[in-house]
Amino acid sequence: MRMTTGWQGTDGGTAPNLETALRRVPIGRRDLRDDDIAVQVDYCGVCHSDLHAVHGLIKPVEGLVPGHEFTGTVTAIGPAVTGFAPGDLVAVGTIVDSCGTCPMCQAGQENFCYEGATSTYGGTDRVDGTPTKGGYSREYVLREKFAYRLPGGLDPAAAAPLMCAGISVWEPMRAEGTGPGSRVAVAGLGGLGHLAVKIAAALGAEVTVLSRTLDKADDARKLGAAGLLLTTDDTQMQQARGQFDLILDTISAPHDLSPLLRTVALDGTLSLLGFPMPTTVQIMDLTYGRKKLTSSGTGGRLGTAQMLAFCAEHAIAADIELLPSARVGEALTRLDRGDVRYRFVLDLSDLG
Amino acid sequence: MRMTTGWQGTDGGTAPNLETALRRVPIGRRDLRDDDIAVQVDYCGVCHSDLHAVHGLIKPVEGLVPGHEFTGTVTAIGPAVTGFAPGDLVAVGTIVDSCGTCPMCQAGQENFCYEGATSTYGGTDRVDGTPTKGGYSREYVLREKFAYRLPGGLDPAAAAPLMCAGISVWEPMRAEGTGPGSRVAVAGLGGLGHLAVKIAAALGAEVTVLSRTLDKADDARKLGAAGLLLTTDDTQMQQARGQFDLILDTISAPHDLSPLLRTVALDGTLSLLGFPMPTTVQIMDLTYGRKKLTSSGTGGRLGTAQMLAFCAEHAIAADIELLPSARVGEALTRLDRGDVRYRFVLDLSDLG
Repeated sequence: MRMTTGWQGTDGGTAPNLETALRRVPIGRRDLRDDDIAVQVDYCGVCHSDLHAVHGLIKPVEGLVPGHEFTGTVTAIGPAVTGFAPGDLVAVGTIVDSCGTCPMCQAGQENFCYEGATSTYGGTDRVDGTPTKGGYSREYVLREKFAYRLPGGLDPAAAAPLMCAGISVWEPMRAEGTGPGSRVAVAGLGGLGHLAVKIAAALGAEVTVLSRTLDKADDARKLGAAGLLLTTDDTQMQQARGQFDLILDTISAPHDLSPLLRTVALDGTLSLLGFPMPTTVQIMDLTYGRKKLTSSGTGGRLGTAQMLAFCAEHAIAADIELLPSARVGEALTRLDRGDVRYRFVLDLSDLG
Repeated sequence: MRMTTGWQGTDGGTAPNLETALRRVPIGRRDLRDDDIAVQVDYCGVCHSDLHAVHGLIKPVEGLVPGHEFTGTVTAIGPAVTGFAPGDLVAVGTIVDSCGTCPMCQAGQENFCYEGATSTYGGTDRVDGTPTKGGYSREYVLREKFAYRLPGGLDPAAAAPLMCAGISVWEPMRAEGTGPGSRVAVAGLGGLGHLAVKIAAALGAEVTVLSRTLDKADDARKLGAAGLLLTTDDTQMQQARGQFDLILDTISAPHDLSPLLRTVALDGTLSLLGFPMPTTVQIMDLTYGRKKLTSSGTGGRLGTAQMLAFCAEHAIAADIELLPSARVGEALTRLDRGDVRYRFVLDLSDLG
């Protein structure tokens, strides 16, 4: 057993006070298997699902250590590792293992593994059955297969959120063939949304941000959007009828899909990324215009590698606020009220 | 005003007794406008939405005359008509007018007209504001633009259901690019479903019928399906996980979408055609496999013309039970309990 330090839930994952929900504790990591690498976690993004996990909204996790978008430095490798050497900069995302044989794994979509991919935290290791603990810690041990070389030119701190927020918006755009001529709307300008704007613009799409306020209109343009559409303005919404080939809906709270679906073009798609909960759909909203409702979650190895290469080529990373990991409570508290532009990243170096 | 005879609702469209819900009455038709044609209705299909209309489920219609899939013979033309001459065999579907200028009309999808297409019955004429009355009558008057030449080789009685049931399954298949190599499932083997099987097979797809019983297994194969999957058999459903690129769901009653979505392939589509009512969707069913939920209703002029040509080329028409129109009450009653293989068609010649 290797020992490291991390930030762990204080009461089985259901804490009312985000400021004190996690405490610094020693964490065990497994000794390296043949195809494992040990990674010194340098930077870990604070994802909205970390917040859900701390709140115990998804499922209460005993000994919860959040964190599933991080970058770091390889410190040790197992004897069968061929892709990495100590000193390599790597990135790790939301899954760290999968069955490898089902049709989804075979298709490079390990995130949809029929047996259930192994989550980076809150999951169960496929070999020894121990619970997985995430990147809010100084070291992580995983199969090399699920680590990615961090491309040169990407800032390791700002690149960390690419591994969940970035890939989550990349995959639906690639599936829809987003490119020059595409009209893409991004609803909700947060961690996922701001990366969606950057990536969609770099893919050549015309991008519109859908927002309830004008607060982020300047940001939207700086990120690469052609404009911001005020969803509270009936006239603007009326004019936008049938305008978008793809809406990436990153809103993380329940909301009525009908006004958004109205702005989807013939045969266009609304991809629900921020709130994958049971939802009542007015099917007639889909009927007229043969519109599609879909959803997606993170990505597989193939897409993740492609996304990282694309982001490096186009100098895309998250707009972040970097905090020492000791301020994780502050990060969670502010994220909970939407007070971040656009992603908190924890600097784990304060853990030694 | 021209006078004809038809079958009309006896009490504003909400009748408890289907046998007597419609009675034979004189019906007025407008005098021909410049671009109108008058059609002697020879055959009219009995669509499930006619049943809903008679029940008053959609919206109660005063003086309801159902019928929106019919074939007939041109008897008179307005002075500006260029496409038809008396004696021509024509087919008419679910819409008889649209605005002509909105993006949907411009795209050849008049069925999705932003101003609302004019329904063949239960609608309102765009010129004189009178209620439209359907094809359960001996004559219909409409703009030539919304009539289609019936291709040679198609039996006029069996072709009538192509104009609603046929086009309703044709358009989603074309939108999804169904062809050789496609794996298409058809849930519900009724009026829409049996045409979906025929058309999908003719497009080159491998077709599977999804059914709760084995009753129609022989029919499924005769219609062109490779097989029938028993949705009540957990083992079969488990084996079918991720198997279908497209499911055409023609089931006309509320049902759980989750078991069907489980059989949709990565990036595949479930198209809800039979029950376009508000539905609770487990978004996670879409997330894993990035599956799409869509819907569609009938078709535009472009698609309808293409569908008719395709069906003529491949000798596809509905399997029908032809009844004199005086037996419309029997047809509705039996349709209501699903007792038809696979579409009732009324022979209107008994109206004189």
